[in-house]
This record gives sequence, structure tokens and C-alpha cells, in this order.
Amino acid sequence: MYKRIDSEDIQYLESLIPSGRIFIGDKISRDYAHDELGGIEKLPDVLINVLSEEEISKVMAYAYEKEIPVVARGSGTDLVGAAVALEGGIMICTKLMNHIKELDEANLTVTVEPGVLLMELQAYVEERDFFYPPDPGEKSATIGGNISTNAGGMRAVKYGVTRDYVRGLRVVLPDGSVEQIGGKVVKNSSGYDLKDLIIGSEGTLCIITEAILKIIPKPAYSVSMLLPFLSIEKAIEAVPEIIKSKASLTAIEYMSLDTIMSAEDFLGKKFPDTNYEAYILLTFDGNSMEEIEKEYTKVAQLCIDMGAIDGYFVDTDERKKSVWNARGAFLEAIKASTDLMDECDVVVPKNRVADFIKYSHEVAEQVGLRIPSFGHAGDGNLHIYLCKDGMDEKTWEEKTKKAFDLLYAKAREYGGMVSGEHGIGYAKKLYLNKQAGEKQIAVMRGIKKVFDPKNILNPGKVI
Amino acid sequence: MYKRIDSEDIQYLESLIPSGRIFIGDKISRDYAHDELGGIEKLPDVLINVLSEEEISKVMAYAYEKEIPVVARGSGTDLVGAAVALEGGIMICTKLMNHIKELDEANLTVTVEPGVLLMELQAYVEERDFFYPPDPGEKSATIGGNISTNAGGMRAVKYGVTRDYVRGLRVVLPDGSVEQIGGKVVKNSSGYDLKDLIIGSEGTLCIITEAILKIIPKPAYSVSMLLPFLSIEKAIEAVPEIIKSKASLTAIEYMSLDTIMSAEDFLGKKFPDTNYEAYILLTFDGNSMEEIEKEYTKVAQLCIDMGAIDGYFVDTDERKKSVWNARGAFLEAIKASTDLMDECDVVVPKNRVADFIKYSHEVAEQVGLRIPSFGHAGDGNLHIYLCKDGMDEKTWEEKTKKAFDLLYAKAREYGGMVSGEHGIGYAKKLYLNKQAGEKQIAVMRGIKKVFDPKNILNPGKVI
Repeated sequence: MYKRIDSEDIQYLESLIPSGRIFIGDKISRDYAHDELGGIEKLPDVLINVLSEEEISKVMAYAYEKEIPVVARGSGTDLVGAAVALEGGIMICTKLMNHIKELDEANLTVTVEPGVLLMELQAYVEERDFFYPPDPGEKSATIGGNISTNAGGMRAVKYGVTRDYVRGLRVVLPDGSVEQIGGKVVKNSSGYDLKDLIIGSEGTLCIITEAILKIIPKPAYSVSMLLPFLSIEKAIEAVPEIIKSKASLTAIEYMSLDTIMSAEDFLGKKFPDTNYEAYILLTFDGNSMEEIEKEYTKVAQLCIDMGAIDGYFVDTDERKKSVWNARGAFLEAIKASTDLMDECDVVVPKNRVADFIKYSHEVAEQVGLRIPSFGHAGDGNLHIYLCKDGMDEKTWEEKTKKAFDLLYAKAREYGGMVSGEHGIGYAKKLYLNKQAGEKQIAVMRGIKKVFDPKNILNPGKVI
Repeated sequence: MYKRIDSEDIQYLESLIPSGRIFIGDKISRDYAHDELGGIEKLPDVLINVLSEEEISKVMAYAYEKEIPVVARGSGTDLVGAAVALEGGIMICTKLMNHIKELDEANLTVTVEPGVLLMELQAYVEERDFFYPPDPGEKSATIGGNISTNAGGMRAVKYGVTRDYVRGLRVVLPDGSVEQIGGKVVKNSSGYDLKDLIIGSEGTLCIITEAILKIIPKPAYSVSMLLPFLSIEKAIEAVPEIIKSKASLTAIEYMSLDTIMSAEDFLGKKFPDTNYEAYILLTFDGNSMEEIEKEYTKVAQLCIDMGAIDGYFVDTDERKKSVWNARGAFLEAIKASTDLMDECDVVVPKNRVADFIKYSHEVAEQVGLRIPSFGHAGDGNLHIYLCKDGMDEKTWEEKTKKAFDLLYAKAREYGGMVSGEHGIGYAKKLYLNKQAGEKQIAVMRGIKKVFDPKNILNPGKVI
């Protein structure tokens, strides 16, 4: 169906891109064959580390003419196969396009290339007393990748998700043409919202070459508290009550003891407390310490009333490090605890999180799989992991299929969605189909065709 | 091109909708021929005041089969002809679908029918100590209309626009099928973002039948200040400095003396101060009065340094009423000050607002038109009015064309957009074409065709 890359194509691409930034065939590292989770493997035929929008435009124009598939990739930290070249062809890696181009203090924007890492952006703006609120666990993801999956993270409770911080994009369309969408403006009601359509489209509609991001002044204070509970159910049942209390929180995370123990093993570092079955981690921020104190006092008391055994401030540098390092390592730690895993990133209404976790325990029992989870209790987004734990391939496939069918069906029943922030990629297409239904999938396919009539951009993903 | 409505169609529609809610031909009030600005007039052939999604679905299915154009309308408060039935056909008015269906305190959402008025929604949630932040000047607009134009309003500086508060939508597609898009979930990365594509699409892609809106706890305090300046330029030049100071503001509005005088005439009520050429109106809100005091003290001092003559609190009920009533009446007041007007709703980067207003004065002089303006200095969204002031039709048309060409070209030069919040409708299509360019317009047309292959929904609008 697609044109296979031949020596003529390679000769042309090598005329565009200097050696050292273009790799062919078995010169391409196996790292580029899979993403962070490694659920599917396939190498591209050509890997190009681009330096500029112009290079992307020229490569795309050629690929469009010849009908060669192209996949854009940042750090490859995704979990659903979105950054894997299923059909081979050209992989455009943006990790060298990692410049922060402008900080505009009068418009509260920062303009970046797509290969800037989340941790680089956060450090850059915070040094200057600004704040980029989206805070996904994976800090080494690129901003291009964060935009392409509409990454959410821990501070979504108060600040929203990546989408809420993208003011403008420059993109290369499948035919190589370059478009500016949006800009530094705060409001916009000028035609169909192409910007938001591109955000979260996982590189299937166009390739992002620049982003204008909204920043805000950095809150003066941030306080975190860790609250132990006797069970995960008890812990999570407190969350809707916290929300109903109208408290202002930045983050509400939940973690169970088994996940914490995995992180301790993985990091070789102690967590401040491992005496209880479950914990919730709360963050409050703002410019008035008095106001923050009022909020956490109210919320801590409410949690005690709901069964919390205690409440510790995560205040010393050591304690902050031990808690946040553990939180940041949960995914890696669960991965290291088993030979293979798969994940489920559902989002449900906030008041169904406790029910959904209980249900995941039922599924674990029913199907016979270990299913640890952690996640964003405050915004309803759960990260649930199915662990192979050495079982044979056939049993694993049957059990994961059965468990996913049950979990996603329950999410639909609760008015939830397949993915809160990891996206659909290759791995979750079946469940997106079930959730969105024929009509919406047909509309999405129609939109894909409008942007990419030859279906050369990240084929086989999302829909 | 479209099927003309005949007696058979009317008979069928009357079988669906009881008399009293369906009006035919000259039984339709002239009010439904135009919007608030009245730039274009055309009556539909049939007006239906629908009560339910089911009725909308049945009417659409019939219209789709017969290829009859359909326009959805709320309060008709728009300014760009979006709610006018350019091609006749059926008008579906949603003003009777005005029920607030659910307030969900655990998920911080309110579920409404599209015909609920903004002022009704605001009152409902505020009585319950919640807050729906979007605050367009026109409080009698429907929520369906606000979503369809992605209305912004005065509190966008701090809280964002309507788009940021829509979690889920139920819609009827052109063929009559009903779809649920999004839901109560906070995060979502599940396929292409159809929800945001529909928001701001001005009723050209589908008809909204229900919206799940995000609400937040109501801030405990809100303080407004009015600061007089010797000139509008001086006033607006203070705004980027306020933003650069990292102060936390809710709203930054500007108003010039001539607009205030028009409002005094129109309302027959005095504004608290009319001794100076220009004013900025600032709002601060939050849960800590101490923090608000810190902010307004800092900002007021900065404004004094930048040339403010004084600073009054808008604190007594009487003063609040006189200032906010005037602010709310600016559009009507300018309209009443002339025989005909047209408007320009550009949005520019925040630090170009002063330049743009200066330029609008140059255009006024150059073209020979009175061009008053007011607007949202804190988010770069200006409302600029071209006044006919009794000149003959031909001169008026030439002058408005010339002035709009100049103003929109300058907005593009500044990286601005055609519309910040009023939309494109019928009146601004030419300028959207120029701003977005051939490629983006082609993509938008492609998207329209995917949703509405027979082009029956609000034809002739946006693109």
C-alpha cells in the first residue's frame, strides 16, 4: 500500500539532511522500535533527527509525493505505541529541536520548539518566577509529545491539562506546508478550532514545530501533606468529600502500600511511612500562606473524620524528595516488579474513582491477575497496571483481553473515557471504538482524511 | 439548491410539533429575521420553539432527508449574523429548553439545556455558593449561544473563556442522530477533540441539546477599582505593566469618556466620575481579603506611577450598580447614539492593545468615521464600533469597507485574530479568509463537509 523506501529515496533524504543526523536500516538503534511500555516493536526504515521546521517541511513534502509513511517522535515516553513506526518508513525525531525561543512577560507566554523536555521548560520558567502548571509524572517527555497526547498530570485538579496552556502552534501538514494556528492571543472565536483538534491527535494530523504556551506567575507557596488510611477504599472515599467541601487543592493523588513498596525496592530508598495500606497525597498552593493554612487545616480535619490515621507535612527537603521521587517512580517500579505489563489509563467522574478501584480489585480476583494502580484521585484519572508475573504468553493474552474488556466496559458505564492522558495510539483503538461509537469514529476518520488524504502521517493510530 | 418548504413539509412538521410552538411564514415575528446588530435580515419559512432533544432530532432527520436548511437560535443576541436564516428554511429556537438539570457537587459540574440564559445560570450557581466564571457583557444570551461562539467576557484574564468550562455536550448531528461528546470527566485524551471543535462552530456542525459545565467554588471576596487617566493611551499603556508585575487580576477593562457619556445618556444615570478622558476598571477576587488588599495596593501604586490620577473603590452598592450598569450598557448605548453601526471584535496580544487603539483613532481620522471602542484590555479583546451617524448608504459602505480592511490588516500584522468572542457568522467571513489563509480554510471546509455533507446546518456562515 505504501511505497517501500528504496535507494533513490535515501539518496534524496541524505541530500536534505547531513550525515550524523540521518540513520538508515540497521544503523537505527533498537530504542526507536518501541515506546516506554514496549507493547509493540517495529523499526522505521529511516530515522532523521531534524533541526528545523524547514527540514520537517521538506521531508514531509517528499514523503507526501512518494506516499511514504512518516512518524514524528519526541522522547518516546508514551505507553500506547503512538510513537512506533508501525508501517516502517521515515521517523522524524524532534529531540534536537529543543530551544526555548522566547519568554514574553507582557503576554505571559513562552515559545518553545517541540523537543524541549517538560523538566527543562519547568526549570526555565520557575527560575524566572513563572509557572507552567501541567505536571505529568514523566518529566523527560517532550513538550511536543505532551501536546500530542494532551498530557494531564498531577496539578490538573486546580490548573487543568496541557490543552489549557497551548495558545498557538506552528505545524507542518502532511503535504509539507507550514501553518500558524492561534498565536499569543488569549481569546479566539475565529473559525473552527483547529488548535484544539491538533492537541491530543497523537501526530496523526500534522507535525508540531513550535508551541506558544501560556504561563502564569509562580505561586509563592506550595504545601504537601501525606495522609495514611487503613484501606485504599477508605482513602479514596474521602476524595469526593474533600471536593464537596469547596476546598482549593492543587493535587490529590492516591497510592497503595504495594505500589509504595515496589517504588522502595526500585529506588532503594525509604518512603517516610509504610505502616498503612493506603495514602493520599494532597498539595495546596497560592500566594497567601494564611489562606493555604486555612485550607489544609479544614481538609486534614475532614480526612481525619473520614478515617485518616494521621497527617504529615511533606516539608523537609528530605521528605519532599522521598515522597515525590517515589511518586515519580511508580510506573517504572511496577514495570520492574514484573516481566511484562500493560496499562489502562481510564478517566471517570471524580465521585466514581473509589468504585472503579474496588472494581479493579474484583477484576484482579476474577481474572487472576495482579492489578496494582495509582493515580490522580482528584481528577478521576487512574493508572492501572496488569502484570504478567511470569505466566505463559497465551494465558497472559487471554487474561489481559478479559480484564481490559471488563475495565473499559465499567468505565463506559460510569460515564468515563478510555484515556485520561496517555492517548489511544495503537493499543487502545478497539476501546475507543466502543466508547465513541460508529458515528463519532466516522467523523474522526473524516477529519483524518481532510488533513491527511494519503494517510501517511502516523498510520494505524488513534482511529 | 435547497428544497423550498412546501405544504407537505409544513404538514409533517405540524404533526411533530403542537401548534403554539410552530409558526409559519408571516406568522413569524420580525425579531427572528435579524440578530442584535441587525446587519442582515431574512426570515425563516418555519420557526419551531423546541422543547426537547427528541424534537430537534426528528426535525433534523426530516430536514436532512429533504435537504431543507436549518438554523439553531437562542436569544439572538449575536452581532455577526450567525443566528439569521440566510437561506430561509427551518429555524429551531431553543429558548424553551431552559432547564438546569443537575448540580453535581462531587464533580463540580452543572448540567443545563441550551436555552438557559447566562444570567439564570450565574444566579443559580452563585446562590449555592458556586461560580461559573465566564462573564460576557450580554447576560441574556443563552448558554447554547455562548458555547457556539466560545464567548469570553470580562473575567477571561483570570478564568479563561467558555471553552474552558465545557466538559461535555449532547448534540444532534445534521442527519438527526444524537451523540454524547465528553462527559463529567476532567481529563480526556480519547481520540480527536470533537468537543472543542463544536465549541465556537456557530451552529454549523451540529445543534447543542445539553451541556455539562464546570463550576468552581465561589470566591469569597471580589473588589473592583476604577482608575481615571488623562488619555486612553495613558490608560492602556499601564496594562502590560500590570501584567508584567505578576499581579493576580480577574478583569481589566478600559473605557473612554465618550463611551461613558453615551451610557449616561442611554441609561439616564450618572457614572461616578466623568472628569477624565479615560478609565480602567480592575477586578480582584479570591478567598483571602488580605491577599486581595496586597494585590490591589501594588497595582494601584503601579497605575499611579503610570499616570493614573486617582483610584476609587467600586464598593458601595450604588457605585457598583452605576459602574457595572454602565459597563453592561456600552454596546446598547453606542447603538443608540447613531442610526446604524457595525463592529470589529479583534483580539491582539495583550501588549498591542494600546497600539491598536491608537491605530483605530488614526483610521477614524483617515476614513472619516466616528469609531468609539471599549473592551477587555487585560486579554487583548477590543470591541470597536463604526458609527454611520446619518451619512448616506453608499458613503457608509465605502467607509466601513475601508476601515475594516485597515483594522483587520493591522490585527493580522500584530499576530491578532478576527474575532475574540463574537465569532465570524456571516459578516466576518472575508476577514477570516484573509487571516486563516487558503489551506486552513480548506481544512475547515473539509471538516464542515464531514459533519454536514448536505450543507443544511446554518449554511453561509463561518466559512
